[in-house]
Amino acid sequence: MLKVNDNYQKLPGSYLFSTIAKKVAAYSEANPEKRIIRLGIGDVTQPLAPAIIEALHRAVDEMGAAETFHGYAPDLGYEFLRNAIADNDYKARGCDISADEIFVSDGAKSDSGNIQELFSADARIAVCDPVYPVYVDSNVMAGRTGTYDEKTGMWSDVIYMPCTMENDFVPEFPRETPDVIYLCLPNNPTGTTITKTQLQEWVDYANKNGALIIYDGAYEAYISEEDVAHSIYECEGARTCAIEIKSFSKNAGFTGVRLGYTVVPRELSYGGVSLHGMWARRHGTKFNGAPYIIQRAGEAVYSKEGKAQLKQQVAYYMNNAKVILEGLKEAGYTVFGGVNAPYIWLKTPGNMGSWEFFD
Amino acid sequence: MLKVNDNYQKLPGSYLFSTIAKKVAAYSEANPEKRIIRLGIGDVTQPLAPAIIEALHRAVDEMGAAETFHGYAPDLGYEFLRNAIADNDYKARGCDISADEIFVSDGAKSDSGNIQELFSADARIAVCDPVYPVYVDSNVMAGRTGTYDEKTGMWSDVIYMPCTMENDFVPEFPRETPDVIYLCLPNNPTGTTITKTQLQEWVDYANKNGALIIYDGAYEAYISEEDVAHSIYECEGARTCAIEIKSFSKNAGFTGVRLGYTVVPRELSYGGVSLHGMWARRHGTKFNGAPYIIQRAGEAVYSKEGKAQLKQQVAYYMNNAKVILEGLKEAGYTVFGGVNAPYIWLKTPGNMGSWEFFD
Repeated sequence: MLKVNDNYQKLPGSYLFSTIAKKVAAYSEANPEKRIIRLGIGDVTQPLAPAIIEALHRAVDEMGAAETFHGYAPDLGYEFLRNAIADNDYKARGCDISADEIFVSDGAKSDSGNIQELFSADARIAVCDPVYPVYVDSNVMAGRTGTYDEKTGMWSDVIYMPCTMENDFVPEFPRETPDVIYLCLPNNPTGTTITKTQLQEWVDYANKNGALIIYDGAYEAYISEEDVAHSIYECEGARTCAIEIKSFSKNAGFTGVRLGYTVVPRELSYGGVSLHGMWARRHGTKFNGAPYIIQRAGEAVYSKEGKAQLKQQVAYYMNNAKVILEGLKEAGYTVFGGVNAPYIWLKTPGNMGSWEFFD
Repeated sequence: MLKVNDNYQKLPGSYLFSTIAKKVAAYSEANPEKRIIRLGIGDVTQPLAPAIIEALHRAVDEMGAAETFHGYAPDLGYEFLRNAIADNDYKARGCDISADEIFVSDGAKSDSGNIQELFSADARIAVCDPVYPVYVDSNVMAGRTGTYDEKTGMWSDVIYMPCTMENDFVPEFPRETPDVIYLCLPNNPTGTTITKTQLQEWVDYANKNGALIIYDGAYEAYISEEDVAHSIYECEGARTCAIEIKSFSKNAGFTGVRLGYTVVPRELSYGGVSLHGMWARRHGTKFNGAPYIIQRAGEAVYSKEGKAQLKQQVAYYMNNAKVILEGLKEAGYTVFGGVNAPYIWLKTPGNMGSWEFFD
């Protein structure tokens, strides 16, 4: 009889958002006259920029005529999009990344979850704490994380790197050497980040220890400070120790459009095995490319009009963050973030727990 | 130092299509005046149906206005699409499948490759031979298939069920009991299928042995014979032993649009664990939904106009198959398929090998 992958059973339920929903519903019922600003789940609210809408309509028309119809896309993405990414996100910043090192996908979440398939079953992963939950959960499902401690919410075989007010939200090198280090910078959910000099230290550490950095740059478009890297490939030596994952959801509002990409440099290899080759094999076997029309929308993100329109959109979300940040400060709270990311991180007053504060 | 998942290294290169490409290139160079009909890789050629193009344009316009913009989609797909699927592909055929048992995805290839994550590491899989290569390759990458024999092209731990002219391409129950049985019916690449009565025997076999059937119905729209099932849920007892995977690529030409779905009945469980819950967890953790505009295109497939237009499109491809079938028959070949699928399977004359015949 079939036995299931019992690592799935180790995952605690996603209680967080269901608990929030229940509490909000109860409050609304008791206080029907109160307006609620929901900060539970993050999503974009602005419509797609006009340049992107135009590109989508054009691509849809192409799909309606035999001469311009597009069937299966190239596994790794269309050249027009990969070239636009290479030119704008890398070459323009002095990063040595070529189009054939870019793998277009249906989003950064899929790539973040799937990338761990390339690691051996006993690879030790390190994550910042707190951080986007997909890194840990996808490794739980693959059996890499040991046992779960309900009290602390931590896994026995995961290396946690606390990012707190005390260390300015800058992760410290862990005592145990990890095989894989997940860095989400600017960070979800703290809204904080590290300097380029600090990032260079992580690259040096990974190269020295034979570790791999999975660099999630989803919030890159929100960086406003000069000394923060827009790509890990701005650091020397990153081509031999880092994979970079990027989203179109935050810079272009593609949460419901679905597009992302992952960079795997050609010389990135462990034990003589090329991760570029492995990721290409995964794409070829378990994925069939992002939709043609969506890839054309992605191309429009890099057009002159698209860039100008999206700059305004990012400014709109950053202004929301600013309003929240300043409102909370005025109300006497200690707050972080909102400078290089749209997230605000708040210190609950006294020794109040998060749920207590929420209530 | 990071060790990679060395199961990937066991995969033989995808020599088939690169060898074909090389041979074709060499032939073209030597014979520039010859026209070549390429049958190496299958793809659709007809433009999207007008009803689908209209739905796409409408959805793009919605994404361009704040009042109608759609951010993150529900993990499992929009209700409008899941209801259309449940009504048209199941209820209309008397199959007891509800909308909340349907998981919308970016395509049947992704689902075919990812579904094996739900199985234990030592699950034994059975496949028809020949068959779509993703079932075996995705299990190779997970380390379930043992060692590869270069001579036979077979894996030591995979149970093969030969489908040949001698058994009318009907797989026989294997001597060893498998945990998972992949059935692609109508079959890619032989173009043949089995009757509903024969399919019922597989359902009974799976229920008796505690095995799971992964039923790939990608070519369902091409079925022309009365006694062939359009869904495995037409068989009694399939809800306790079968997952069904469906594509929009073949019935609606969505190869470059990317949409598919997987049905996991609520009562499908092994060792007391619900596969519905596990697949929902996978979707929630490693996927962020299919694009809103593409899901609207999927909905249009089930509209009155869409259905009429796609019936013509399927007829067009089936006519291509008929031309090839009859041409080969007239030329004296023994051929199969082309009745319930667009594929034609040809017996090479004498004891000629496939490559020899190709040359």
